[in-house]
Amino acid sequence: MTAMNTTTHKHLLGLKGMDGKEISDILDRAAYWEQHPTKVTNVLGGKFVANMFFENSTRTRFSFEVAEKRLGVQVLNFAAAASSVQKGESIYDTVRTLESMGIDAGVIRLKPNGVLQELAERIQVPLINAGDGNNEHPTQALLDLYTMRKHFGELKGLHVAIIGDIQHSRVARSNLWALQAVGAKVSFCAPDMMKAPELEAHAPYVTMDEALKADVVMMLRVQLERHDNALFTSADEYRAQYGLTVERLGQMPPHAIIMHPAPVNRNVEIDDELVEHDRSKIFTQMSNGVPIRMAVIERALS
Amino acid sequence: MTAMNTTTHKHLLGLKGMDGKEISDILDRAAYWEQHPTKVTNVLGGKFVANMFFENSTRTRFSFEVAEKRLGVQVLNFAAAASSVQKGESIYDTVRTLESMGIDAGVIRLKPNGVLQELAERIQVPLINAGDGNNEHPTQALLDLYTMRKHFGELKGLHVAIIGDIQHSRVARSNLWALQAVGAKVSFCAPDMMKAPELEAHAPYVTMDEALKADVVMMLRVQLERHDNALFTSADEYRAQYGLTVERLGQMPPHAIIMHPAPVNRNVEIDDELVEHDRSKIFTQMSNGVPIRMAVIERALS
Amino acid sequence: MTAMNTTTHKHLLGLKGMDGKEISDILDRAAYWEQHPTKVTNVLGGKFVANMFFENSTRTRFSFEVAEKRLGVQVLNFAAAASSVQKGESIYDTVRTLESMGIDAGVIRLKPNGVLQELAERIQVPLINAGDGNNEHPTQALLDLYTMRKHFGELKGLHVAIIGDIQHSRVARSNLWALQAVGAKVSFCAPDMMKAPELEAHAPYVTMDEALKADVVMMLRVQLERHDNALFTSADEYRAQYGLTVERLGQMPPHAIIMHPAPVNRNVEIDDELVEHDRSKIFTQMSNGVPIRMAVIERALS
Repeated sequence: MTAMNTTTHKHLLGLKGMDGKEISDILDRAAYWEQHPTKVTNVLGGKFVANMFFENSTRTRFSFEVAEKRLGVQVLNFAAAASSVQKGESIYDTVRTLESMGIDAGVIRLKPNGVLQELAERIQVPLINAGDGNNEHPTQALLDLYTMRKHFGELKGLHVAIIGDIQHSRVARSNLWALQAVGAKVSFCAPDMMKAPELEAHAPYVTMDEALKADVVMMLRVQLERHDNALFTSADEYRAQYGLTVERLGQMPPHAIIMHPAPVNRNVEIDDELVEHDRSKIFTQMSNGVPIRMAVIERALS
Repeated sequence: MTAMNTTTHKHLLGLKGMDGKEISDILDRAAYWEQHPTKVTNVLGGKFVANMFFENSTRTRFSFEVAEKRLGVQVLNFAAAASSVQKGESIYDTVRTLESMGIDAGVIRLKPNGVLQELAERIQVPLINAGDGNNEHPTQALLDLYTMRKHFGELKGLHVAIIGDIQHSRVARSNLWALQAVGAKVSFCAPDMMKAPELEAHAPYVTMDEALKADVVMMLRVQLERHDNALFTSADEYRAQYGLTVERLGQMPPHAIIMHPAPVNRNVEIDDELVEHDRSKIFTQMSNGVPIRMAVIERALS
Repeated sequence: MTAMNTTTHKHLLGLKGMDGKEISDILDRAAYWEQHPTKVTNVLGGKFVANMFFENSTRTRFSFEVAEKRLGVQVLNFAAAASSVQKGESIYDTVRTLESMGIDAGVIRLKPNGVLQELAERIQVPLINAGDGNNEHPTQALLDLYTMRKHFGELKGLHVAIIGDIQHSRVARSNLWALQAVGAKVSFCAPDMMKAPELEAHAPYVTMDEALKADVVMMLRVQLERHDNALFTSADEYRAQYGLTVERLGQMPPHAIIMHPAPVNRNVEIDDELVEHDRSKIFTQMSNGVPIRMAVIERALS
């Protein structure tokens, strides 16, 4: 379904089902944009894109906005909190309204799972998923793959360990599908209460010691308050068992890199000293988000 | 007073007192913009327009923003909730501040009745009313007339029934003045507690059965919580007496159309199945809002 | 420290330590922009500036936005309330994130004192202070000096009395440093609880009668709720002792002018009738903010 929509409408709902060739093409186009330092092009001049965030975001929204403006696109920013969604208007009606006004594509983030797929079936303009529930966050995974490919030269054969709250993570899921499509190997590492049972068939859960042997150690943001059946009585305890501490960095092979989709909880899932460490790609990931999103928007509008 | 301001300062405070010729000219210019598919022009390049929303809005604000950007105008978006109006700064001071910074026109929405007229007397730049209290919402009525004229060919002699909370509706009032100016006939239909006594001299109140015989059935958004003297114990009861149900659609003549300024309360004033029905113009109205607002902004800045 | 950063990175953190020549150069460039009526230039076309407001603002944010858009700069607006700073993300991480995305300069307002200086040491792109704690608000003081210079022809020898809550005022501090650098004389006037002890070595505290003899009477916004040890039982009492009333206007020399950084509390620190009085420069100050900020942004990006 996702793949079909991807092809027909230029939606980008998720990476599940996208093949390695299509992923590589997007990364290649992002490389083009990264290498062309002209600040603002006008290739899509006069097109309108609406960023529709039904869930708060700083970095993702700005990353899309910079990408859109570099492409010469006119940007409309919609944030649910400041709008009549408060008056009970449905997500569909809001998207349909912006479509009626003539937008050429929509970037959308929303909380409930499954709603995006329904929307894509009823909306004619291409939709780009900027994070839906715990389902997918395709542009995050694409920028992660871009960052890995740039560092290691190729993705095939890489071992990526994703550590933390897999259950609630759309980043983990999008990375899983995309990394496997390009021939990389994924392992998960999580306490029991943060495991996603439906993913066990796709990637193994390994111990922390095992995970630290990977080429890429990808830490996830942890939100301890989400788990009522609290295994961890404190952030310190989580850090002790699953945090990337300065001490654990020593267990990583010398060539391995640290990634995190941000925002980070410093000294919870990752030590403060590691956030801007030489081995960390966290802010590089953010930089890479802009050319990736340029490539994705261009693809949606072409 | 409105008419005078309209002429001298290019304010658009309301449609009361505007003659049919001036209304037609605006609709004609909107038709021009609708027919010219170039996405962004630069006819007003370098002008600044501030959208000043002292009351929440999604669709109206975005409709103006798209219109402004299509005209090449620089847009400033002001929303009261995110600003120092919270610190008790007056509406006047905010508008005056933006005027001092060199805006060329202001689009303004506010709650209290009468304030807009006072503002227009003290502010030099043209102001466009985007909804003031329950007084007027001129661009909504203009896009409604545009939608009707496009569908029926001409406005003269049309019968438009406006159904719902007339008392609180600026949409009803602006439509009343504009429709009568172009030679259309207006009827109202409302429960007693939602009637506007001061309008009884201008248009008759009719029964629901009578209203459903009109060429245009315009449903208004109902906000039951506004009425303490609650006639209706539930939304269902309102729907039963004044809602446009699938069953009542059968009473409408075959050529008649459904309109609604949106956002709709699905299954309250209008059944879910009718919102995107062939006979409904609701999303067409939204599309038409953009060229109407292009025409209105151009008029203010010319 | 400030001065060094000013020179090396084109940061504008404050006016303390900036010499009279550099201040005059900025005012001269603002005069250039004021005299060139082309609405939007493209001298900085393609550059990106992020307005990062970790504290609410209407006028300052819009003034920067108009200035940026007149220079052809692409604008990103960040307001803390609408963002993931709510999730505990630090100010540093937010600024670093926007820097990673490729902004060319940042305009920043924040509450805590001292944080801006730390930021400037860790961030590579130029930062422009749009108000930090009660430390500095350099663009406000620059527009104040611009307004005075335009009115009086020159700044040297002018006597400026600043009246009100000196303790909490970044406007008072930036004006103090800048006015003294260009050879003007500053006096403060404040009730004891609003005096800033550390400034007593720099400018004298005078009585209200004395302050009213100055060439420029600059009233500060008072926020009585900030002072728990309440000297004043009401706004009326404050007005009686420290307000610029219509009666006190009579004590001012005929050539003297009234200034206020706004927003004003009408009938508290200044009488309603004086806000737009012939002698008042309050809205002129706001107009002058735009060319000043154009000059400052251009300086940061050059």
